Amino acid sequence: MSSKYPVSVRTCLPLCALVVETAFILIFFFFTTYDVVSEKQQLMDKYQVFQDVTVMAALGLGFLASSFPKHSWSSIAFDLFILAVGVQWAVLLNGFLKDDYNGEIVIELSSIQVATMSAMSVLISASAVLGKTNLVQLMMMALVEVTAFSVVYMTSKKVFSLEECTSMMYIHVFAAYFGLAVTWCLSMSTPSKEQMEERLAKSSSLFAMLGTLFLWIFWPRFNSTLLYSPDERKNAVFNTYYALAVSTVTAISVSASAHPQGKINMAHIHNAVLAGGVAMGASCHLISSPWPAMVLGLLAGLISIGGAKCLPVGLDQWVGLMRFHRMLMVHYTFGLPGLLGEFAYIIVKVYQ
Amino acid sequence: MSSKYPVSVRTCLPLCALVVETAFILIFFFFTTYDVVSEKQQLMDKYQVFQDVTVMAALGLGFLASSFPKHSWSSIAFDLFILAVGVQWAVLLNGFLKDDYNGEIVIELSSIQVATMSAMSVLISASAVLGKTNLVQLMMMALVEVTAFSVVYMTSKKVFSLEECTSMMYIHVFAAYFGLAVTWCLSMSTPSKEQMEERLAKSSSLFAMLGTLFLWIFWPRFNSTLLYSPDERKNAVFNTYYALAVSTVTAISVSASAHPQGKINMAHIHNAVLAGGVAMGASCHLISSPWPAMVLGLLAGLISIGGAKCLPVGLDQWVGLMRFHRMLMVHYTFGLPGLLGEFAYIIVKVYQ
Amino acid sequence: MSSKYPVSVRTCLPLCALVVETAFILIFFFFTTYDVVSEKQQLMDKYQVFQDVTVMAALGLGFLASSFPKHSWSSIAFDLFILAVGVQWAVLLNGFLKDDYNGEIVIELSSIQVATMSAMSVLISASAVLGKTNLVQLMMMALVEVTAFSVVYMTSKKVFSLEECTSMMYIHVFAAYFGLAVTWCLSMSTPSKEQMEERLAKSSSLFAMLGTLFLWIFWPRFNSTLLYSPDERKNAVFNTYYALAVSTVTAISVSASAHPQGKINMAHIHNAVLAGGVAMGASCHLISSPWPAMVLGLLAGLISIGGAKCLPVGLDQWVGLMRFHRMLMVHYTFGLPGLLGEFAYIIVKVYQ
Repeated sequence: MSSKYPVSVRTCLPLCALVVETAFILIFFFFTTYDVVSEKQQLMDKYQVFQDVTVMAALGLGFLASSFPKHSWSSIAFDLFILAVGVQWAVLLNGFLKDDYNGEIVIELSSIQVATMSAMSVLISASAVLGKTNLVQLMMMALVEVTAFSVVYMTSKKVFSLEECTSMMYIHVFAAYFGLAVTWCLSMSTPSKEQMEERLAKSSSLFAMLGTLFLWIFWPRFNSTLLYSPDERKNAVFNTYYALAVSTVTAISVSASAHPQGKINMAHIHNAVLAGGVAMGASCHLISSPWPAMVLGLLAGLISIGGAKCLPVGLDQWVGLMRFHRMLMVHYTFGLPGLLGEFAYIIVKVYQ
Repeated sequence: MSSKYPVSVRTCLPLCALVVETAFILIFFFFTTYDVVSEKQQLMDKYQVFQDVTVMAALGLGFLASSFPKHSWSSIAFDLFILAVGVQWAVLLNGFLKDDYNGEIVIELSSIQVATMSAMSVLISASAVLGKTNLVQLMMMALVEVTAFSVVYMTSKKVFSLEECTSMMYIHVFAAYFGLAVTWCLSMSTPSKEQMEERLAKSSSLFAMLGTLFLWIFWPRFNSTLLYSPDERKNAVFNTYYALAVSTVTAISVSASAHPQGKINMAHIHNAVLAGGVAMGASCHLISSPWPAMVLGLLAGLISIGGAKCLPVGLDQWVGLMRFHRMLMVHYTFGLPGLLGEFAYIIVKVYQ
Repeated sequence: MSSKYPVSVRTCLPLCALVVETAFILIFFFFTTYDVVSEKQQLMDKYQVFQDVTVMAALGLGFLASSFPKHSWSSIAFDLFILAVGVQWAVLLNGFLKDDYNGEIVIELSSIQVATMSAMSVLISASAVLGKTNLVQLMMMALVEVTAFSVVYMTSKKVFSLEECTSMMYIHVFAAYFGLAVTWCLSMSTPSKEQMEERLAKSSSLFAMLGTLFLWIFWPRFNSTLLYSPDERKNAVFNTYYALAVSTVTAISVSASAHPQGKINMAHIHNAVLAGGVAMGASCHLISSPWPAMVLGLLAGLISIGGAKCLPVGLDQWVGLMRFHRMLMVHYTFGLPGLLGEFAYIIVKVYQ
């Protein structure tokens, strides 16, 4: 990103982007039409939800990825680029894959919102590979990953007849391991020592904290957005909030104890405070009292911070270099807490 | 701003400001009264819209103007100052100029919201002259420009019987060229070499990116806020979103291609990603399928980034110095895409 | 914070935090249950208000406290920690202290919202002591202060039969002087010269400005959130907005005049622009025309900036060192304007 691009990429990028955009415009021209809206109140409410999800995607995930001083600002621009490409493609794809597709896609506000959530999978994965990829690669990755995620999402809805919200909540696990797979596949040159240090600059860290806070604040909205019964939605909001609160307290206090000088490790905080929200994803609407959410938040915080602290040392010695630093961050923020959430979902379903 | 002010300004500013404020308080005392609100839901919805517009004005435009390291923080304080003065004056002025004015101005939530939008014209213009003016000049400019804009706005509503939203959308063009005119008129000393460089510091650039993202996210709200039919409002939201998405992809990919090392020019991005939203302003409620919005976004992104890239070189040689750097940024972000929008509006009206 | 912690603190913190969290989980297990929600619209509206209050607490107050370069990022993490602990405890406490408590606490969305507002008192106080305390002390302070505030809040509601919103608005005065008392009690070592300088770094100052802007934008929401009549709510929104606008103009213009070079002192701005909102707290729903709010905003701005400018010099000479720098900031932002607000409330009540 900060290194010189080969000339081929420079010529290729605008060409690719304009070809993709032209293709999008043609598909939209032939296949799509807008919904007709008659009730104002409904539009206002849906718009609010859609706007909050966009804040999470553009501001929250964008700034969360900005913590590495070498490519802080370009990572935000790259994220916006991925988001813009991903949403357009996801709107089309979700339309084509719908049950009642009959040659015309009707675009509603909720379809842009679901598309934004699908595109968020690319943003999560991208945070594992940013700095190692150029924009052409990222655009390809966005198109492929949105396709894969939409197919998985639609299949799980149809085949396993899962609720919409539950199948969406596999997004964290899907995105984390898709990102890891991509990192693995990319033939990366061994990073220089300078890159390995990748120490957090103070102001970059504050920007990442800003992203974290936006995600923290809007996570209850994210988890409740695909629920339509008011009671389930309220459960989702409450449980997510409590899980986040407990994982925050856990993460910050445990982080300080392990540091040799008792300082807080900011990289831990950025990720571990969100673990509670990730872990609540699948089961948030089914739990109807605060304590299970709080227990899950406690576990998620411990897993996220424990993983970030203990495992890298072992892996470092094993692999011999830090090239997995970012991958592991994604693994401990979205991967493991997401798996914990799936596990909790199964338990809740069994004992219900 | 960062240079020493002459003593006269220091004495003059609080005096001017307090005199203006006292005058405002007296006018409010004699001429205004609050609306009576009975329905809660309506208040909640209007409040939400008003709050989002304030976020755009105070956070979005404030931080967008902060990209120049020499006066980053003071430019945000200056913007807040202009906003506070401008809104008070615009509320009064819009009240006096209304058709049904009978000696008393009834202040509704929507009147503060329209006033905030009028004051945004000053914020846009100010970004062309910040760093060259002191607070007294900015306060005068705020009072004059709000007066001019409100008169134009009310006249275009009455004389040409334009819809409220269409006359408001001339704001971008008006503000851009008002700002350019003011820059032209101010007897500016030739900036020193140091000022000419005005290179973007990394953290300033991130703050400007923050402003850009806020504007990007809230732009669909901005374009739909003066529309009252649910269907038109939905069209405005959809079209603005698609235009923004396409102009983002265009701007980022084209910007990278022209840089000798394939890097993204951050100053381009700050401005060009918003061009789609500006271009959709006038016609967003009339277009009822996504592809014309996407074509407009593509054109707006190309114009904005092409202009920012090609023209300055020519103008530089012509004028001999970079003193128009900021002016041109305003020109390519708000001026040209705004004109493109007006052009699109006429075409849509003709073919409708 | 940036100094080494003694080993005892490092061991103590996670132990304390986990014990407190376990206690919370047990209390929630035995005593709480969720509300049943049937109406979707009501949930959406309450959720929006709750979310905005969380934005103020986590983003606004967090970043406002970040202006000191030595502990900028940790202060944001500390604030999030305090918020998470404080809200959990305040939900329980407000439940136990309610009139109709019968062995079970029913958690509604509004109870989390009121708890967030109670926890904000700790955040305000904490900004006076941050940098002098460790996380264990802050956690204890959070528990004690939330208890004290909730008792005062509930008592003032029952004994003086004040409206809910008025008793909540004592929060600023309570928090400011609680914070000052805590600072006084802590046996502080005389700060080193380095600490006394505590000069504002530019990017820290921009982050603090971001916090200020969030508070500025959401303050009308904060003041109107506990009002249920649409007309009172509208009064609160209008009056708070006007008071904020006038105190902004006053603060910025007066600040520039007193600086020897006519520059704006950013630390003044961060605090004084909010003084209008604080001063409107208690009486915002009772005033029904804009001018009294504007006069209050003018006075609050003058008091806040005048105090910040004149008094420290005298106190400095008296006490001999700058150790009260932050205390005084809290005093002039929340303490004095809060007292002005109480005074205005009494006058309004007498003349009503």
